[in-house]
Amino acid sequence: MTTEVKPSPRERLLEAAATLTYRDGVGIGVEALCKAAGVSKRSMYQLFESKDELLAASLKERSAAFVASLLPPADDGRSARERILHVFEQVQSQAGAPEFRGCRYLAVQIELKDQTHPASRVAHQIKANLTAFFRSEAEQGGASDPDLLARQLILVFDGASARAGIQADDLTGLIAPTVAALLDAADMR
Amino acid sequence: MTTEVKPSPRERLLEAAATLTYRDGVGIGVEALCKAAGVSKRSMYQLFESKDELLAASLKERSAAFVASLLPPADDGRSARERILHVFEQVQSQAGAPEFRGCRYLAVQIELKDQTHPASRVAHQIKANLTAFFRSEAEQGGASDPDLLARQLILVFDGASARAGIQADDLTGLIAPTVAALLDAADMR
Repeated sequence: MTTEVKPSPRERLLEAAATLTYRDGVGIGVEALCKAAGVSKRSMYQLFESKDELLAASLKERSAAFVASLLPPADDGRSARERILHVFEQVQSQAGAPEFRGCRYLAVQIELKDQTHPASRVAHQIKANLTAFFRSEAEQGGASDPDLLARQLILVFDGASARAGIQADDLTGLIAPTVAALLDAADMR
Repeated sequence: MTTEVKPSPRERLLEAAATLTYRDGVGIGVEALCKAAGVSKRSMYQLFESKDELLAASLKERSAAFVASLLPPADDGRSARERILHVFEQVQSQAGAPEFRGCRYLAVQIELKDQTHPASRVAHQIKANLTAFFRSEAEQGGASDPDLLARQLILVFDGASARAGIQADDLTGLIAPTVAALLDAADMR
């Protein structure tokens, strides 16, 4: 026998915000969010100061799953080069899903056009953490310029996610040779 | 004595749509567009079937300037490699402007989340033309796999524009070595 725990209004709002903004954009209204979550507007404003704060919280809440879906386990015995390639294999695999619309954190920043917005700040931090992972692996793998390589890898990450998200490219046969060329140019083991 | 030609209502609407959607996003209302253009809603609907059509037309109207701002003149005597690098020098220079928000064509496609929207179709075509330029130069320069190199270059173009547009990177010292590494990996002269 399984015991189902019904998600709380807060959890339902976070889920609705994550799902609807990813599908429809940050312009989604409070009405639609509350309706999808089955929560009254009054309750929403008791839980979150504003729609902006709900959006920021929903991005933050997804960050653990985002990281887990991309990064290899710590100390998995593979080389730094293989650990970096792992992230891009995950991107390519995620991009194959029909509901894929690109990186949600990049999309939010592009859509909001305001890098001081609470949701933009959350998105910025999450991507900065991914860049830091690349930098740390680049250093581990003896890259000639770990800072440059990390910037190149996050650029490829965003470019690939964006192009797959708008269905301009399916990434097949593209992302692995691109990353390999940059790793080779950096003399990365 | 100079003769000033006052822009027509159609031109003013195209300009307002281009400027306001780039700054504020595609969610900008018809009211705001008409107000900025100094045109009545009635006139707008006489000139354009819908806001969607106005948006598509404004993107199309900007495409000549977009191409001119990026591409080298035809047969300028430079090598294919230099002609490709020219495009990325332009991107870096444009990204330095305070009003830069990334590639307007990528942003529209990400914001609309509907690749069948008339404006998405226009944006897709304009970027496909840029990819075709890369492919043609790649072939000219003897790239080992011109299709792959063209896909890599447009990925870097979108990634660089996006990251500069959200102010995550200023591209300094990044874009030239990235493109050079890909050109080298393709044995591009």
